[in-house]
Amino acid sequence: MNFTGANILSVDQFDIDSIQTIFATADRMQPYARRQKRTKVLDGAILGNLFFESSTRTRVSFGTAFNLLGGEVRETTGMESSALAKGESLYDTARVLSSYSDVIAMRHPKSGSVAEFAEGSRVPVINGGDGANEHPTQALLDLYTIKQELAYHGHTVDGMHICMMGDLKFGRTVHSLSRLLAMYKNIRFTLISPRELAMPDSVLEVLAQAGHQVVITDQVSGISDADIVYQTRIQQERFTTPQEADLYRGKFRLNSEIYTKHYKPNTVIMHPLPRDSRAEANELDNDLNQNPNLAIFRQADNGVLIRMALFALTLGVADQVDKYECDVNWYSEKRTGY
Amino acid sequence: MNFTGANILSVDQFDIDSIQTIFATADRMQPYARRQKRTKVLDGAILGNLFFESSTRTRVSFGTAFNLLGGEVRETTGMESSALAKGESLYDTARVLSSYSDVIAMRHPKSGSVAEFAEGSRVPVINGGDGANEHPTQALLDLYTIKQELAYHGHTVDGMHICMMGDLKFGRTVHSLSRLLAMYKNIRFTLISPRELAMPDSVLEVLAQAGHQVVITDQVSGISDADIVYQTRIQQERFTTPQEADLYRGKFRLNSEIYTKHYKPNTVIMHPLPRDSRAEANELDNDLNQNPNLAIFRQADNGVLIRMALFALTLGVADQVDKYECDVNWYSEKRTGY
Amino acid sequence: MNFTGANILSVDQFDIDSIQTIFATADRMQPYARRQKRTKVLDGAILGNLFFESSTRTRVSFGTAFNLLGGEVRETTGMESSALAKGESLYDTARVLSSYSDVIAMRHPKSGSVAEFAEGSRVPVINGGDGANEHPTQALLDLYTIKQELAYHGHTVDGMHICMMGDLKFGRTVHSLSRLLAMYKNIRFTLISPRELAMPDSVLEVLAQAGHQVVITDQVSGISDADIVYQTRIQQERFTTPQEADLYRGKFRLNSEIYTKHYKPNTVIMHPLPRDSRAEANELDNDLNQNPNLAIFRQADNGVLIRMALFALTLGVADQVDKYECDVNWYSEKRTGY
Repeated sequence: MNFTGANILSVDQFDIDSIQTIFATADRMQPYARRQKRTKVLDGAILGNLFFESSTRTRVSFGTAFNLLGGEVRETTGMESSALAKGESLYDTARVLSSYSDVIAMRHPKSGSVAEFAEGSRVPVINGGDGANEHPTQALLDLYTIKQELAYHGHTVDGMHICMMGDLKFGRTVHSLSRLLAMYKNIRFTLISPRELAMPDSVLEVLAQAGHQVVITDQVSGISDADIVYQTRIQQERFTTPQEADLYRGKFRLNSEIYTKHYKPNTVIMHPLPRDSRAEANELDNDLNQNPNLAIFRQADNGVLIRMALFALTLGVADQVDKYECDVNWYSEKRTGY
Repeated sequence: MNFTGANILSVDQFDIDSIQTIFATADRMQPYARRQKRTKVLDGAILGNLFFESSTRTRVSFGTAFNLLGGEVRETTGMESSALAKGESLYDTARVLSSYSDVIAMRHPKSGSVAEFAEGSRVPVINGGDGANEHPTQALLDLYTIKQELAYHGHTVDGMHICMMGDLKFGRTVHSLSRLLAMYKNIRFTLISPRELAMPDSVLEVLAQAGHQVVITDQVSGISDADIVYQTRIQQERFTTPQEADLYRGKFRLNSEIYTKHYKPNTVIMHPLPRDSRAEANELDNDLNQNPNLAIFRQADNGVLIRMALFALTLGVADQVDKYECDVNWYSEKRTGY
Repeated sequence: MNFTGANILSVDQFDIDSIQTIFATADRMQPYARRQKRTKVLDGAILGNLFFESSTRTRVSFGTAFNLLGGEVRETTGMESSALAKGESLYDTARVLSSYSDVIAMRHPKSGSVAEFAEGSRVPVINGGDGANEHPTQALLDLYTIKQELAYHGHTVDGMHICMMGDLKFGRTVHSLSRLLAMYKNIRFTLISPRELAMPDSVLEVLAQAGHQVVITDQVSGISDADIVYQTRIQQERFTTPQEADLYRGKFRLNSEIYTKHYKPNTVIMHPLPRDSRAEANELDNDLNQNPNLAIFRQADNGVLIRMALFALTLGVADQVDKYECDVNWYSEKRTGY
């Protein structure tokens, strides 16, 4: 695809080549994000960071990504926007607000709203999550993390074994990630969840059609050679009683003991974050914090790289980033050592 | 008037010359707002964007205008400010907050509050709306749009025929605009509204004293040679029952059919936005979206130019904007083509 | 102490030398804050301004301080952060959010939370207030103001007489300030408050151990040679009835008449702000606004200098600030003349 001027609305718009372009661009963002150097390639450009639904970390991640490229950020949080409440169409909102920036990152609680907004927008729009529908930058950062972590162990996405665990029905991230992974070859998916929270048929069909091997189970087993375990949160509100939720949680937690018992020593641990660390939930225990295979914070860091890459690509400056390079003259040691 | 260091609090502080200065400055801002080039004239300056009342688009418009001049923005939204709630005077708030910025844009729900704040401020203050009282940048952008649209058709403000329609009693924008227009010559005003929502006498007096021709009516007629139709929203909450509001709305809507029937082909359509596009309101129908005379989005865009002009003038840098000019190296095509 | 890369969490981490370093750095920030010139020493750096509790002026003061050094600000206000609400640990929040910035200023309603956050942070953290616990930048700006004001009269902190008045029990600022002052020599403290709102023993012990002279009283007397009067707010909610609160307030107000009667002509008047100017409170009357000894707005201004100094020191650029100096080309007269 031609990225310059494009909207980024759905994982479905990518093929292997365009993903490769995004990831190669993200790779080149690493030294700026780690503060080994900085760039002013977007000095003077303005991001419209429109979060009609709260999400601190996604919002700040987009804003930081834009700042790291040298740009400015204007933003809005929540439904403060009385205009929509007063009956303004998303088209009108888009026509007006899009003229206030050079590119837009947008989150909105309603499915399809970001695409609708993009119709009226005069600048590229990047979907930061539209309700239950899509969150393409999360799927991209997940896939980017998988590639990086596997590469560290000398492996590739093709031929890997991934275990997805927990709530696979309502977890938007595992759906989008699966659809991205479907484009690769010979992947083994072990999908562990309560039957009531199984992966939707629509996703399973995509995987089957692409010829991947899928095992669906409600038992924690058959994963002793998994390369990746992608843990999710069990959302209590989906169950009839808290007790019922506890029942599921007990089986689908991940901690050091369970990890050692069921997984091989190098299985990479992922989670879309935030993890719920309260005793009654605790789906990913803090006793794994020192385990070098815990990739959850590298995952979050990668989100900045992916968002930098998408800004650079949609604004057509990906090739000029190093042309506007400068030194970093302040303390930045802690950042780089992790 | 001498703009450098001045507060912009009310339309009453302008004469024809000062308006001309603002508009000439706004004209010169066009290439920066359209991203044909950029300027760093206010690089390092800080705008205090103090919105003690929510208004996403006005807030973002001020912030963007300042960013487009190269400056930084610090802001506050809503009555988050516990200080005022804890009994702090506006004078104290102004003394403290004004020292955190180089210029302030302020909105506050209370009439007169912005002028009161300006008393204690150590930097210029621009009124972004103080309750039912004033919203001078809206009035200026409306007048600027009228001038531009008429010029496109080879006409001038002097001698034009403007039709204002809808709620002329509570609509702050038509009051301020009328007072600005009063300074020009031989204008015909056709004021169409329910009797209960007629233009206030105070405004009518200003128009009469200036020798303009005013027709007050509750019928949509006598406008076949109107140059401008300025539509407003019928605000349901002003009426005893929703049914009563519906009665008025039916008569004062504007859509393609009504436009074709009552107006000449080139009548420019304006609206302060947001327009209420819900079926029960819909005072300005979407079927006019493709009509080239629909100026509502150009109106919103002009808001950025006016705000840029006021920042440049009050900070005394209007003459230096092009001295700090730079190229735009990112994708900006969609912005310019509208 | 070595500031580069350090967290600023508590006044207890300073000694006289480190305070001297901060104040000398703050002194050098004056021309930038007054807009006689500007600096780009932190151009491209990002402040994470994380206010999990609202405080407009402290938040904006930190943000402005960072902008004045040339940096960018990303921020969050209130418990918008659903992540903490969803059971995320402060450690996780810190690991993720800290990678989005180069330094963090943080306020949080819970005592100890900022230090807990700092454990997980990969960049320096500056405490902007953690509940009833600490607000070190306020204490530093108070002490800096005292030093400056006394120096103007040819006096020093050593040997001065300070009167603290009002609610000395719940007022966080007088506690931290007292602990800083304890490091100096031969100070006389006159602590005037209702008995129920007396200075806590823990603070009194620190003062006694350091050999300072402390008078505790509920009468406004013995202060005719005070160099400083530090007024605080009587917080009505601490009392059984509003009437009871009124009783105390009547005795501990400060206005021109009381000032003239009890204090010498040059006693410096301080207050942490905001002051409650409603008739029923009014602990520091507006009739003192023209008194040149009223230092409350200089105090607020000094907050920007202190925060600039701490940013420059923790990021290791304090010595390079003037190397990145530029001219100010916009109107800034009102700012400097106060």
